[in-house]
Amino acid sequence: MKFATLKNGTLDGRLVLVSRDGRHALAVPQIATSLLDALQRWPVVAGPLQERYDALNRGDADGSVAFDPATCAAPLPRSPQWLDGSAFLNHGRLMEQAFNTPPIPHFDTVPVMYQGASDDFLGPHDDVPLPTEADGIDFEGEFGVVCGPVPMAASPAAALACVRLIVQINDWSLRALGPHEMKTGFGFLQAKPSTAFAPVAVTPDELGDAWRDGRVHLRLHVQWNGERFGEPDGGEMNFSFGELVAHAARTRRLTAGSIVGSGTVSNLSRGAGSACIAERRVIEKIDQGEIRTGFMRFGDRVRMQARFDDGSEGPFGLIEQQVVPAR
Amino acid sequence: MKFATLKNGTLDGRLVLVSRDGRHALAVPQIATSLLDALQRWPVVAGPLQERYDALNRGDADGSVAFDPATCAAPLPRSPQWLDGSAFLNHGRLMEQAFNTPPIPHFDTVPVMYQGASDDFLGPHDDVPLPTEADGIDFEGEFGVVCGPVPMAASPAAALACVRLIVQINDWSLRALGPHEMKTGFGFLQAKPSTAFAPVAVTPDELGDAWRDGRVHLRLHVQWNGERFGEPDGGEMNFSFGELVAHAARTRRLTAGSIVGSGTVSNLSRGAGSACIAERRVIEKIDQGEIRTGFMRFGDRVRMQARFDDGSEGPFGLIEQQVVPAR
Repeated sequence: MKFATLKNGTLDGRLVLVSRDGRHALAVPQIATSLLDALQRWPVVAGPLQERYDALNRGDADGSVAFDPATCAAPLPRSPQWLDGSAFLNHGRLMEQAFNTPPIPHFDTVPVMYQGASDDFLGPHDDVPLPTEADGIDFEGEFGVVCGPVPMAASPAAALACVRLIVQINDWSLRALGPHEMKTGFGFLQAKPSTAFAPVAVTPDELGDAWRDGRVHLRLHVQWNGERFGEPDGGEMNFSFGELVAHAARTRRLTAGSIVGSGTVSNLSRGAGSACIAERRVIEKIDQGEIRTGFMRFGDRVRMQARFDDGSEGPFGLIEQQVVPAR
Repeated sequence: MKFATLKNGTLDGRLVLVSRDGRHALAVPQIATSLLDALQRWPVVAGPLQERYDALNRGDADGSVAFDPATCAAPLPRSPQWLDGSAFLNHGRLMEQAFNTPPIPHFDTVPVMYQGASDDFLGPHDDVPLPTEADGIDFEGEFGVVCGPVPMAASPAAALACVRLIVQINDWSLRALGPHEMKTGFGFLQAKPSTAFAPVAVTPDELGDAWRDGRVHLRLHVQWNGERFGEPDGGEMNFSFGELVAHAARTRRLTAGSIVGSGTVSNLSRGAGSACIAERRVIEKIDQGEIRTGFMRFGDRVRMQARFDDGSEGPFGLIEQQVVPAR
């Protein structure tokens, strides 16, 4: 199934089913008012949602309308928790060089993860208001999973079975603030403003073979101001989402709707490009001896879309955002 | 005004006003169903709530019942954000010695803060389920503020003006997990299971002179298994709550109901004792050459209550919790 959330002035927005071809949307208020509502009552609503989704795809769902991603909030405009890993070790190792921070202990065997704000997510086409360009404005292309209830201390296999939906994420970052926050040991806070999401959240079956081994085997195509920036493959993730969710739930239960992110998608191959500016900058330093690329300026745009290996569009739709000065 | 939340099977619980003497409670469903609901509509509901609170204190509020803290959830069973500082520098400096971590840069001038889980808070008398005693189970007595909407990049003075309520907190910590998470630079995650709250959240005026300079000038009396552990003074906080809230809002707006914590209350005077075990342990090491105190065991109890300087009870009520093995 494919889900989106239309802005309607409420904190959780209005749930719609999106047809497999992405052209039609169907509100289902008689089943669930919001995606969070659906996730909280999943065992009861999954069947009726599937029935309406099948009807929508057959073209015989009364009340379906054209789907307009421009009217979308994040699939979950707010979520109980947003926990973001750094599961592409290539990215993490490059960031250590970029930030000149000490090697992270046990980085190969224990996931790292921070908790971000989950009360105020941005929609796929929302402007990104930030206080100053001096903070080092950067995008970060990621994949993530939305969980059902996860019991405390769940195993990776049990945690993976709790995955309900897969999402595509732009985890905005302020690079001038990150290194200090890492050095405090308390982790990212000011360095992580509101996170944005592609319009469509999907059940794992929508990815077919591209969802395997607890990983999203899609390339994340990133453009900055209309120019190609990279298309790294999500399948190179060093920890699976099962391992990430289990890490998150080690000493806490996760309530339905909690989101766990992969961290910036990153490939060993230089040819894949990057999904964030900080990574390109450190590669420039390593490979060319100097940093040539600056961070984002107000008015800059970033565009992200997952694609299958054959180049066809992934199911999440497009993130396209502009950075603007906060009022 | 004094507020509490009764457990009723919903995520946000049932709001009640609590009389100033703590003896009576009054549900106000015609004004607000939950404390979060009230905070989201504060400009509209504050006046009607005050009218009912005054009636409750006069003894002529129809429908008032005996207030039973044992039936309480946290005042906000879930909150948009939970951001916890470490604003008592004495505590932070002792922790550096306890964990053998490098000095935090700019610790005197820039607050440190982590984001914790805010979807699953514990009530004042809830058991604390944890996976293993080997994690180094510790309590942390704190104060905190609940905010109205805070705009991005608010000044400390503007941020302080956004404080709606004051709360008393037990920020459960797992000390065996903290040092590793600090060394990763990503901050506390597994080291911070669900946080607990005293039953009553109060508007600042309820503290009288004990709320001044953006600080809570009350002593936090802590007992562990019935024995006195400490009673440090919240007024010794090195950063004000205005400074902490402004730090939290530097690159994000805070939505109504966000909670900002002080970090463990800690005083320079050894005579005040401590509000967490880790601090007592490092003091033992420094002053006596060896650690004598272990962390908590399953079945252990902690009790926390704020008191005015004259020894009279503070307005928040009692936290009294037992640590139990997670199922």
